[in-house]
Amino acid sequence: MDIKRRMDSSKNEFLEELVEFLRMPSVSAQTDDGAGFRACAEWVREKLEEAGAEARLRETDGHPVVYAEAGDGDKTLLSYGHYDVQPPEPLELWESDPFEPEVRDGVLFARGVADDKGDVMARIQALRMYQEEHGPLPFKLKFLIEGEEEIGSPNLAPFVRSNGDFLSADACLWEGSMKDDAGRPMIFCGTKGMVYVELRARGASHDLHSMYGGLAPNPAWRLVQALRTIKDENGEITLDGLDELIEPPSENDLEAIESIPLDENALKASWGVDSFDRNLSGRAALKEMLLRPTANIAGIQSGYTGPGAKTIVPSEAFVKMDFRLVAGQSPGPVLALLREHLRKRGFTDIEVVDMHGVEAAKTPVDSPVVRTAIETWREAGREAVVYPTVGGSGPTSLVATELGIPTIMTGAVANVGSRIHAPNESVRLDDYFESVAYFARFFERFAG
Amino acid sequence: MDIKRRMDSSKNEFLEELVEFLRMPSVSAQTDDGAGFRACAEWVREKLEEAGAEARLRETDGHPVVYAEAGDGDKTLLSYGHYDVQPPEPLELWESDPFEPEVRDGVLFARGVADDKGDVMARIQALRMYQEEHGPLPFKLKFLIEGEEEIGSPNLAPFVRSNGDFLSADACLWEGSMKDDAGRPMIFCGTKGMVYVELRARGASHDLHSMYGGLAPNPAWRLVQALRTIKDENGEITLDGLDELIEPPSENDLEAIESIPLDENALKASWGVDSFDRNLSGRAALKEMLLRPTANIAGIQSGYTGPGAKTIVPSEAFVKMDFRLVAGQSPGPVLALLREHLRKRGFTDIEVVDMHGVEAAKTPVDSPVVRTAIETWREAGREAVVYPTVGGSGPTSLVATELGIPTIMTGAVANVGSRIHAPNESVRLDDYFESVAYFARFFERFAG
Repeated sequence: MDIKRRMDSSKNEFLEELVEFLRMPSVSAQTDDGAGFRACAEWVREKLEEAGAEARLRETDGHPVVYAEAGDGDKTLLSYGHYDVQPPEPLELWESDPFEPEVRDGVLFARGVADDKGDVMARIQALRMYQEEHGPLPFKLKFLIEGEEEIGSPNLAPFVRSNGDFLSADACLWEGSMKDDAGRPMIFCGTKGMVYVELRARGASHDLHSMYGGLAPNPAWRLVQALRTIKDENGEITLDGLDELIEPPSENDLEAIESIPLDENALKASWGVDSFDRNLSGRAALKEMLLRPTANIAGIQSGYTGPGAKTIVPSEAFVKMDFRLVAGQSPGPVLALLREHLRKRGFTDIEVVDMHGVEAAKTPVDSPVVRTAIETWREAGREAVVYPTVGGSGPTSLVATELGIPTIMTGAVANVGSRIHAPNESVRLDDYFESVAYFARFFERFAG
Repeated sequence: MDIKRRMDSSKNEFLEELVEFLRMPSVSAQTDDGAGFRACAEWVREKLEEAGAEARLRETDGHPVVYAEAGDGDKTLLSYGHYDVQPPEPLELWESDPFEPEVRDGVLFARGVADDKGDVMARIQALRMYQEEHGPLPFKLKFLIEGEEEIGSPNLAPFVRSNGDFLSADACLWEGSMKDDAGRPMIFCGTKGMVYVELRARGASHDLHSMYGGLAPNPAWRLVQALRTIKDENGEITLDGLDELIEPPSENDLEAIESIPLDENALKASWGVDSFDRNLSGRAALKEMLLRPTANIAGIQSGYTGPGAKTIVPSEAFVKMDFRLVAGQSPGPVLALLREHLRKRGFTDIEVVDMHGVEAAKTPVDSPVVRTAIETWREAGREAVVYPTVGGSGPTSLVATELGIPTIMTGAVANVGSRIHAPNESVRLDDYFESVAYFARFFERFAG
């Protein structure tokens, strides 16, 4: 098909539909509004139907999964995405309403536009374009679009496990990838695992006047002391036994990493920092991001944090941490290590709350689907960069490991400056339209 | 005068007026409402006039000081108090509205009732009773009631320094004291000093997806690392040079401390804890509270602290700390020690914001005003306990040191369970009425 001509005539419509999707505040971490959330899933289902797929909502114990099928043939492609988004907070840092999409200088700002609504819509529009131009796809395309990715997909595992038969496929396109700072599309062949925990400490039953600061147990100090045993003064992780679990990377992985460009200065500039953590640089920085676990403080709070000076000993303190895990480090054993690490050091008063865990997953960098992704980009005049894994996590292992489907991330609605999970999340409109065309070309190529 | 008879006929009126005072939300740390705040000061002025004093508002660069004089004679007594209160947060922990006083089982709940509005009103009512029964006081009583104590009295020093002449007195009753867990009135002869700081760390210009958790500078981790150098793993303060500044306590102080009862179990029970920090107990616990500096975390915040699991590397982190200081440790030098301590360890990226400082102050435990306070309690059938100092701080040194006026805290509207600075602050109504009578008797005794 003449993708370019068709794209040019459809851009307004593509943008309007994306904006409609982005206006729905499907924040899985916060919503109590089951009805509003369901309306978003229902909207996605309708768009799939309009694109010529057979789509329906599949119930789970949480938010529904949108499942759809289109086309038929010998081969099967599974497409995974999610219609839920991260919380928009802190709201005061947004330059426009996170749920009232705004285009400024060719850039579309909205919560979820980069992760993952833009990507979900790009694939649906690509299917629609394909089928309107060519008729039914000559292979089976399955859409699995869930509503709980941003809270760790608590109900996806049972769903996948009880529906493994009809989810079977030759390859899977996981949620969208992005362009790097030089505009190169990134193809990711794996994801890190994760354990997300809250550590909670308690002192007195109520805040005390800080005249008792030398005598009253202070839960904020307890957390500081406990945290400090998890990273040393140089910022190196010191959690007992964590490194011992790591499976060494393959030769192919190490080779792929050698050819990954990292424009450190551009990344630093986009973050507004002068140096990386621990002054990492070069290959060491890249390997840190792709091959090493993390122990991240995502949030911490205790006591009085308003304006001025309030003098109290706080009664409670908590820290939210995510540990990103590499192959070999399963969430369960890592959580057990953490509990034992704290127990051994006398921090039995600190409660470790398991928020969720997800396994790391990897697809070999020389898989056929990786080649298809590379060639599709090349057809569009772009040289993609292949990453053995990405720093982020997702329930990829359910498909890649448990169902044994080669699974990658490709397409590039987002870019490294998209501020995923942060205020002023955005994508460039041109990248969105290019990704719609990319998926249409990918379908043509996958059909063979 | 027949204090008991007079008290019995006035209790309703005393309570009504106190409730009226407590309804005014004079939160000095938060108010932008200069007019509302001023109305509170004006109300106090009127009550002083009704008690037979000559009262007026004295302007400062912040909230006005209420100054009043009553009586005349050879001797002069200065009374210091404050009409501002701590912020009421966290609001959800209050069982009744902090600014809608409520009596439950003979206990009056409201922000500021124990610190310091109850005490301010008890003294004004005592003056009114005295003058209505006896006529003018046979000594000069001066009231100095400020509106910025809870934010560190930033404008009190210039006020006292430029008005030293008319503030001169033979003794000063500082803001109110309290009863211990056995109902014994506590007399405090000094206050700790304080430095209140905010330590601020910054990472990227915006929150980042935590896939960058191994590479992006994390300001929350930086604060943890910096804080950990201020207290060691045993909870002992390790700030370079802090102990060297301490002036050893006097023999009288040590002797007084030996006779201070500390019902550890009662204190622990009131806090809802099983043990004190570092398992301190006995004399060691008492000495820690009265003779040692503290390094308290009053609040800490960074990143996402809402429900669920948000995976970000925060862009900012801050901690609010108060260091309570003992004699010899001036705020300026301690702040300099802190900055140098962090600089030497490479934490030059952490901003140290000086919120305020106040000097420690001490009046000898064998001063005449201490004896008067003890004897007045004895007349009411209570044996007071004399503390060389209290764990808390205030601008006492302006009067005690700079003006050289022997300064103590006595009267006991509050009790150790009053939850000063915390949710559900309260006093027992009987203690309030007893304190009104106490101050009236103190005036009789001070007149000689």
